[in-house]
Amino acid sequence: MTQTAPSPDQVVAQRYRAPAPAAPAEWNPVLRVLHEHRSIRRYLPDPLPDGVLELLISAAQSAPTSSNLQVWSVVAVRDPQRKARLAALAGDQEQIRQAPLLLVWTADLARLRGLAAERGAPLDGADYLESSYVAFLDAALAAQNALVRLVVGRPDPAENARVKPRLPQAAVLHEETYTPAGLADIDDYEQRIAQFYAEQDLAHSWIDRVLARLGTAEALEGRDRLRESLAAQGFPLH
Amino acid sequence: MTQTAPSPDQVVAQRYRAPAPAAPAEWNPVLRVLHEHRSIRRYLPDPLPDGVLELLISAAQSAPTSSNLQVWSVVAVRDPQRKARLAALAGDQEQIRQAPLLLVWTADLARLRGLAAERGAPLDGADYLESSYVAFLDAALAAQNALVRLVVGRPDPAENARVKPRLPQAAVLHEETYTPAGLADIDDYEQRIAQFYAEQDLAHSWIDRVLARLGTAEALEGRDRLRESLAAQGFPLH
Repeated sequence: MTQTAPSPDQVVAQRYRAPAPAAPAEWNPVLRVLHEHRSIRRYLPDPLPDGVLELLISAAQSAPTSSNLQVWSVVAVRDPQRKARLAALAGDQEQIRQAPLLLVWTADLARLRGLAAERGAPLDGADYLESSYVAFLDAALAAQNALVRLVVGRPDPAENARVKPRLPQAAVLHEETYTPAGLADIDDYEQRIAQFYAEQDLAHSWIDRVLARLGTAEALEGRDRLRESLAAQGFPLH
Repeated sequence: MTQTAPSPDQVVAQRYRAPAPAAPAEWNPVLRVLHEHRSIRRYLPDPLPDGVLELLISAAQSAPTSSNLQVWSVVAVRDPQRKARLAALAGDQEQIRQAPLLLVWTADLARLRGLAAERGAPLDGADYLESSYVAFLDAALAAQNALVRLVVGRPDPAENARVKPRLPQAAVLHEETYTPAGLADIDDYEQRIAQFYAEQDLAHSWIDRVLARLGTAEALEGRDRLRESLAAQGFPLH
């Protein structure tokens, strides 16, 4: 590398667009990768080298899983026509068409349902809301292990993805007991993220965007019917 | 270090108690940490060095968050009496009493509700089931970033925590379309994890344990009333 890697202080400061909340007490390559996370939405079409998918999945399976239930599955989709249909279903996401591999992470209670059926054992607990959270979280933690720290497909170097700044630490970290966030912290963030958007020639307000995203049932764009969809997919959510 | 670090093949094989599904195509310190994850349940009482909590939280805030909503908060609890009460509430978990710091991760829509109220804007979308999944997942991904790769508190060296083996990759990875898991994979796993338990002088069956965990509403030990509890906490889950 000809460039010097940014110092720990710089890496943390980049996440807030503000000085680091405290001098980083420890530092290691894992912390660097976590802090430098950003979303890539343009990919080159090159296929993955052999063995990468299996390595992603073993990393995923190393994530914590509630009671070791392992109630998730992942579907590896490479077929271009299938990817195109899924891209359309997912709100027309072009990056799904571009990437050589799409991983579809699923909450999967079917494996245990099959096991229970084979044994003639009940599995009534699977029908409760709680088990749906367990399965969704299991799947999310597995996906995070696989995807945050490795790229599935090669990012297009023409995309200059930046680290998105987050709320000041004071807004999310509470000492001993929860206290409602001060609006000053949010106003401060509004200024810092405006700068991030301005660098991409966007004039976005975080406040306006989040209020629009959650303002009405219609703004959920069909996700307001998730309860009915999940019931149809075998999640009664008692 | 006087010991040689295990090779990538060995690290992956340890996760399955079986040969690695494919020769690891890439390897780096992050993959090693992810694969070597295990749960620590005994801690020394030493307080955390200055700056570690802030670094954990900036790592947490670097996790992906849906639509950049950031609908989570974390409460840092150090007070021994408060920790003791929380330990009792959490099914009497001794490690909560032992650890110098407990991080309570919360799905937090209150920050945006406060913002909406201040603006006189609606936030009806927050009342839907979908938004509860978003908030729970945001909190889980943040917690995973903070906790999987750093220990809050020093593990007691007297505890010999082992890597828990997971289901064979064939049980969770599906090519192109989902196919129900074969029971042979599960039987195979049953043997491998029995060995893990035997090393701790336990005679556990994974199949029996998961069927018991989800067998009945009563086995959820109160979590079958999660829907009512969440409603009382401001999650109507429409």
